[in-house]
Amino acid sequence: MSVPLLILVTRPVVGVTDGRTDAVTSAPELSTDAGFHFANASLPQLSVLDLGVTRGDGVFDSLLVADGRIPALETHLARFADSARLLDLPQPDRAVWRAAIAAAVATHPPVPVLAVKLVLTRGIEGTGVPTAWVLAQPALDFTAVRRTGVKVVTLDRGYRHDVAATSPWLLQGAKSLSYAVNAAAIREAQRRGADDVIFISSDGFVLEAPTASVLLREGNRFSTPSAELGILPGTTQRRAFEFLRTYGYETDAVRLRASDLRRADAIWLVSSIRQAVSVTQLDGEPVGVDERLTEQMNDHLGRAGD
Amino acid sequence: MSVPLLILVTRPVVGVTDGRTDAVTSAPELSTDAGFHFANASLPQLSVLDLGVTRGDGVFDSLLVADGRIPALETHLARFADSARLLDLPQPDRAVWRAAIAAAVATHPPVPVLAVKLVLTRGIEGTGVPTAWVLAQPALDFTAVRRTGVKVVTLDRGYRHDVAATSPWLLQGAKSLSYAVNAAAIREAQRRGADDVIFISSDGFVLEAPTASVLLREGNRFSTPSAELGILPGTTQRRAFEFLRTYGYETDAVRLRASDLRRADAIWLVSSIRQAVSVTQLDGEPVGVDERLTEQMNDHLGRAGD
Repeated sequence: MSVPLLILVTRPVVGVTDGRTDAVTSAPELSTDAGFHFANASLPQLSVLDLGVTRGDGVFDSLLVADGRIPALETHLARFADSARLLDLPQPDRAVWRAAIAAAVATHPPVPVLAVKLVLTRGIEGTGVPTAWVLAQPALDFTAVRRTGVKVVTLDRGYRHDVAATSPWLLQGAKSLSYAVNAAAIREAQRRGADDVIFISSDGFVLEAPTASVLLREGNRFSTPSAELGILPGTTQRRAFEFLRTYGYETDAVRLRASDLRRADAIWLVSSIRQAVSVTQLDGEPVGVDERLTEQMNDHLGRAGD
Repeated sequence: MSVPLLILVTRPVVGVTDGRTDAVTSAPELSTDAGFHFANASLPQLSVLDLGVTRGDGVFDSLLVADGRIPALETHLARFADSARLLDLPQPDRAVWRAAIAAAVATHPPVPVLAVKLVLTRGIEGTGVPTAWVLAQPALDFTAVRRTGVKVVTLDRGYRHDVAATSPWLLQGAKSLSYAVNAAAIREAQRRGADDVIFISSDGFVLEAPTASVLLREGNRFSTPSAELGILPGTTQRRAFEFLRTYGYETDAVRLRASDLRRADAIWLVSSIRQAVSVTQLDGEPVGVDERLTEQMNDHLGRAGD
């Protein structure tokens, strides 16, 4: 396992730690007002007093690096800013984050696929100063699962479809650090002999997977649950739809019922790092799979071309 | 602000760091198989790869130290173990945690009120090794709010009253690190000119406050929402009820409707560190306050006597 690279997005710049060793070197291209510094992610960098860990009080976003570039970078940064706004966190300074991401990508040793994570927490309790970092690390290899697909179970998300509008304090639609329920849902899926989950609202609407958007195909029409259902706006779903439209398919964001899943010709879960994976089984029943289209989508999603 | 003391509950024991300085000293009473070591909580001790921060994937508990002892320590340890079970985390070794807590309490410099936090996370992603720590730090001074009470608004918790039974992956009833919604609800209360929140289930049952249990008084009868509603079993609520019964009051855990709150003679929020605070206003309407009983309860709750 190669060592991930951490860039702390805080003032002032203090230097560069080589991600592969503990040696601190100077940062040749970094002026003292770049707004971030390098640190070694294999060493402890976070306080146990940080509200990011004591309360899961922060936001994140995950980005794929393709050919040294980040597809849909600005869409990710916009979503990161939206997540911060939903949690009443300060708005990230995009110029600083862009520079930190670029520095992380430029500095990380070559790996097959690089993933970058952005994190912004409310910081150490009582200080009012957020903690922020960019983490560059080798992505897990999802080649196999893109070929085999995943078995999925539907699970109740517990909330009505309209809570994002009626009860914004439930933080639906924010990519927050409070993701324990998403992890628990995936463990529940595994207990049921499946790999992943599609969440359904308590009143029967299709929502999203714990870490992916849901795509449905019926004939030449592709649909995804609309963002007003309190789900995360999928950056990869958006890129997949752009791609599908160039092939002449119709795409739409709509309200879908659980019964629409059972009627679909094919279902995919799409996300930045794992990209598009076919759902081969839904609650124990087989689902149609289009291997060729899945491969074409992943070819497209794995390229930069933003 | 005095520096908090951190005790990392991990093998092996490596030494003691004085909480007030960075100097590492030897641990006189600690054998190498005590199962924990001391570390300085004012220095970074946590990896940004820890699932405790990247996913809020862990559990905690908060304990009050009264006269050098912890009221209801075993109840707290049992609840901590229950939280771990709900998240499929390994069961904490109570002997090690007891010893670590005792060491933290014995080592911390004297302060008016000491608070101890227990944390267990799923650890660094991919390792399968949990991260665990005990943090001893001076408690905030809640003397004033115990006298003045708090203004409260009711907010929809979004979940039906029965989700803990129907949908255990929603982790209701676990004291998890994914507490961003609790913090967001308190910010919403502040926007509405209040200090705190009582959560109501989507089907109208009284649940709990973001970090406290709810107690109601009607005549000589005290009630609290029952634990089957997917709320945290309140260790302080339990102690308060024991105390009230010695005064001849009736106590009961029941299902309460939001309308029961409006009919109550008095309402309290009770928790380990802040103890009992009177609700003086509910959704803008005044609530009866019993200053003398509140003071008596707090006298009792602030003493060890487990």
